[in-house]
Amino acid sequence: MMNLKFNQEGLIPVIVQDYKTGEIRMFAWANQEALEKTLQTGYAHYYSRSRRSIWKKGETSGELQRVVEIRVDCDEDALLYIVEQEKNIACHTGERNCFFRGIDGEKVKKVLPFETLQRLQEVIKSRIEEKRENSYTYKLYTQGEDRVLQKFGEEAVESLIALKNGEKEPIKAELSDMLYHMLLMLTIKNVDVCEVLEELASRFKG
Amino acid sequence: MMNLKFNQEGLIPVIVQDYKTGEIRMFAWANQEALEKTLQTGYAHYYSRSRRSIWKKGETSGELQRVVEIRVDCDEDALLYIVEQEKNIACHTGERNCFFRGIDGEKVKKVLPFETLQRLQEVIKSRIEEKRENSYTYKLYTQGEDRVLQKFGEEAVESLIALKNGEKEPIKAELSDMLYHMLLMLTIKNVDVCEVLEELASRFKG
Repeated sequence: MMNLKFNQEGLIPVIVQDYKTGEIRMFAWANQEALEKTLQTGYAHYYSRSRRSIWKKGETSGELQRVVEIRVDCDEDALLYIVEQEKNIACHTGERNCFFRGIDGEKVKKVLPFETLQRLQEVIKSRIEEKRENSYTYKLYTQGEDRVLQKFGEEAVESLIALKNGEKEPIKAELSDMLYHMLLMLTIKNVDVCEVLEELASRFKG
Repeated sequence: MMNLKFNQEGLIPVIVQDYKTGEIRMFAWANQEALEKTLQTGYAHYYSRSRRSIWKKGETSGELQRVVEIRVDCDEDALLYIVEQEKNIACHTGERNCFFRGIDGEKVKKVLPFETLQRLQEVIKSRIEEKRENSYTYKLYTQGEDRVLQKFGEEAVESLIALKNGEKEPIKAELSDMLYHMLLMLTIKNVDVCEVLEELASRFKG
């Protein structure tokens, strides 16, 4: 283990990032003991400055954080926990993460580029589970997988034509369509897009 | 602006995340003035606890951080700057981000799921710029765009067949191939995969 620099209260800041979406789930603090418990158990532990005690995230709520990896910053005075979030809720307010408002106080609606595929697949899953009648996704889903595959194939061909033509707007539009249908088809086959991206990542050196 | 809680030193922690890749570029601190300068200029400013002064990130190195968005956590005592990083370097060590080591002190090699497409496109760009002879990417690139498009089309069809068959490993393998050739073709056409993901994200409510 590295020679971590804890502050005068014996604490080190912890950034908590989601392994799949990349969103910042929380910001918290750890002391030596919280870090050791995290390493021993594989689940995120922090130090509460208000309660002056160690806490295991999600111990009562079930919103546990399985720690995939811990990284340390260049000065060795900040930690990054990369986690898988149980129940998809990290904030005590019930929000999926603690950074749900902008500096203006308004709730953030924007989905960021890096989280787009994973978050869209979440939406697709929920449309199907809810059987939402007025949803394009649910309607297409009910038409069966051959119809979804046919749409995927059509959009792949349209993407190819747009790429050949080389104009940016059609390229963006057609590839978006193709990726959406890819996500729907992956959902039908119970494959998480994260698993595809893991496979792709394993093939190259960053 | 929200009623932010600065600590007894007048500081608030700032998580700095890349807009495109989602990687955590840095962890730093701001005071009221650093935050105001960030909002006024659109470029990240911080407070250095060692130098006891405001600093503009990249002022001398050129490694500026254009701030796309600022988010605030539920307790209003932590900030998230979402930035575009000039020169793709954020750490004073010359690394692309400050969290380049694991808790064991070893340099991190793993590319995380959410950053995979953007990071792979970076690699593809560099292979082409370097004209790296022993690279599959560079060789395929030199065969011309029709050959790349043909490969993209082949891999899309193979993906379709794998999805129809429904076995996870071929699905992951074929879609990885298709996405790789999509990234190469986007690179040839000077489209950033981030632009495609922005288009896709604009189509759904998260």
